Amino acid sequence: MFRPEIKVIDCTVRDGGLMNKWQFDDEFVRHVYRALTAAGIDYMEIGYLSSENAFVRGEYGPWRFCAEEDLKRIVGEGERSIKLSAMADIGRIEEEDIPPQEESSLDMVRVACYVHQIDSAIALAHHCQDKGYETTINLMAVSTVGLRDLQEALDDLAKCRVPIIYLVDSFGAFYSEDVDTLAGKYLENLTGKTIGIHCHNNQQLAFSNTIAGIIAGINYLDGSLYGIGRGAGNCPLELLVSFLKNPKFNVRPLVECIEEQIFPWREKFDWGYSVPYMVTGVLNQHPRAAMAHMESDDKDRVTGFFDSLHTTT
Amino acid sequence: MFRPEIKVIDCTVRDGGLMNKWQFDDEFVRHVYRALTAAGIDYMEIGYLSSENAFVRGEYGPWRFCAEEDLKRIVGEGERSIKLSAMADIGRIEEEDIPPQEESSLDMVRVACYVHQIDSAIALAHHCQDKGYETTINLMAVSTVGLRDLQEALDDLAKCRVPIIYLVDSFGAFYSEDVDTLAGKYLENLTGKTIGIHCHNNQQLAFSNTIAGIIAGINYLDGSLYGIGRGAGNCPLELLVSFLKNPKFNVRPLVECIEEQIFPWREKFDWGYSVPYMVTGVLNQHPRAAMAHMESDDKDRVTGFFDSLHTTT
Repeated sequence: MFRPEIKVIDCTVRDGGLMNKWQFDDEFVRHVYRALTAAGIDYMEIGYLSSENAFVRGEYGPWRFCAEEDLKRIVGEGERSIKLSAMADIGRIEEEDIPPQEESSLDMVRVACYVHQIDSAIALAHHCQDKGYETTINLMAVSTVGLRDLQEALDDLAKCRVPIIYLVDSFGAFYSEDVDTLAGKYLENLTGKTIGIHCHNNQQLAFSNTIAGIIAGINYLDGSLYGIGRGAGNCPLELLVSFLKNPKFNVRPLVECIEEQIFPWREKFDWGYSVPYMVTGVLNQHPRAAMAHMESDDKDRVTGFFDSLHTTT
Repeated sequence: MFRPEIKVIDCTVRDGGLMNKWQFDDEFVRHVYRALTAAGIDYMEIGYLSSENAFVRGEYGPWRFCAEEDLKRIVGEGERSIKLSAMADIGRIEEEDIPPQEESSLDMVRVACYVHQIDSAIALAHHCQDKGYETTINLMAVSTVGLRDLQEALDDLAKCRVPIIYLVDSFGAFYSEDVDTLAGKYLENLTGKTIGIHCHNNQQLAFSNTIAGIIAGINYLDGSLYGIGRGAGNCPLELLVSFLKNPKFNVRPLVECIEEQIFPWREKFDWGYSVPYMVTGVLNQHPRAAMAHMESDDKDRVTGFFDSLHTTT
């Protein structure tokens, strides 16, 4: 029943950290790491790879940087059955600050970019590849990219050496038909490459769009524990693992980790479906206005928020 | 872009009432009625049609009965642009307690049944039809019905006069592929009839499965405001209306009603996605164990709940 090519990437710490500037303590990160390992998850994306001068340490927690000494405190020295990934944003990491893979606990670097940054992203990904890392390019906000720009980006990606390209629904704007259409286009244009998918839950479609991606032939799948992440959050990992039929996966350690480590964060942050995130998703807009609204004292005044976006667009 | 055959049925009061024994005050029901009317929704399912001796009035609110005098207090006497529906459970309504349609504010009676009750359901639906009502049969928990029983039920339904048959995912167990398969089977066996879909949100798939139903040719779609309903709740009406392209629909009155009338109920009831509802959905079980767990003081102890269902099944 299962497709052995499918790999699951957990983004709990990396995407969840967008909510708290990666101020997770070691106990949290270590618990997540152990739970994902026990559950048979393929990759843990533990944070962003950033140069030390790109952000102020202290204001930002260790998982904004993914320095080797921080990684080591979590994973130690021994054999690992789960791979570690970090995301790199264009302009926030200098090439010389990326260690060779054999000196790093990281196995994979995922380069996130907008369509106008595609050349920089390919260059950075090639650099990481040459240093020994597995690499992906995650083309963000593709729901806002016009057909000509998308074709040019896919042409460039087809020619590059990066083996895994992600379809990213940054704004939670996609319906299954959009995933079908775009997955088909990616697969058609990127012969020989693997396609990944990263969805957001603005319209409660992150999980179902990930399934739509699987049906369309996508093999790298992102999720996070209980959907934790900025705004409406991500595809809930526990749902995804329950859906996948590969017997190597085990959902129980995920449930335990949700109970012990994720639930306490619900008191500090609102993530998951809410009307403001739905409104930006339906309008195919960045969720920043919805996030600001949800952090205000008026977060339940959703009609005013709805009106503010419908009169300005 | 839109399919004019599509009709939307709001179940806020009927399904939401499963949480509070239909103890909604008139202001709430009237506000929902006005909002649905302003939003262009086709039907409001305002409650269950029950005989007075089936439940104790007072313990149960008026929308467990849908007596004409209660309906009139909400909708008055004038013209209406929205139709009213009530659900009838087998065994809880005597035929003689159903008034002729011309003496009732109700336009439609939906008969809910399990597969072993299909003959009773057809008889009751025919009775309602003969009294002048639009009718549907909603075959519940079809995720647990074996192929032979399902075929026999579909054969009986194909021969009956009831024009609308519902595919109901009572346990929130379906993936889109299940909806595809079953919608195809219903459409193939029930030539000339209209198919409806009612989904639950245990796996965050109520909305996406409703879309899958639309794509497969289903035309009657159930939802509720902010997904309110027992357990994991229903397909959120605001998402469904935002998805549908028929210009007669307007989402703003729904958002306003959610803010003013639905949000206050969040303090009294937990509905929507949670790990216990996911667990019963994945296991294709009735959510009653999950509901009991969510009402206990230990509702966040989800690992214990997970274990209890995995050792007994």
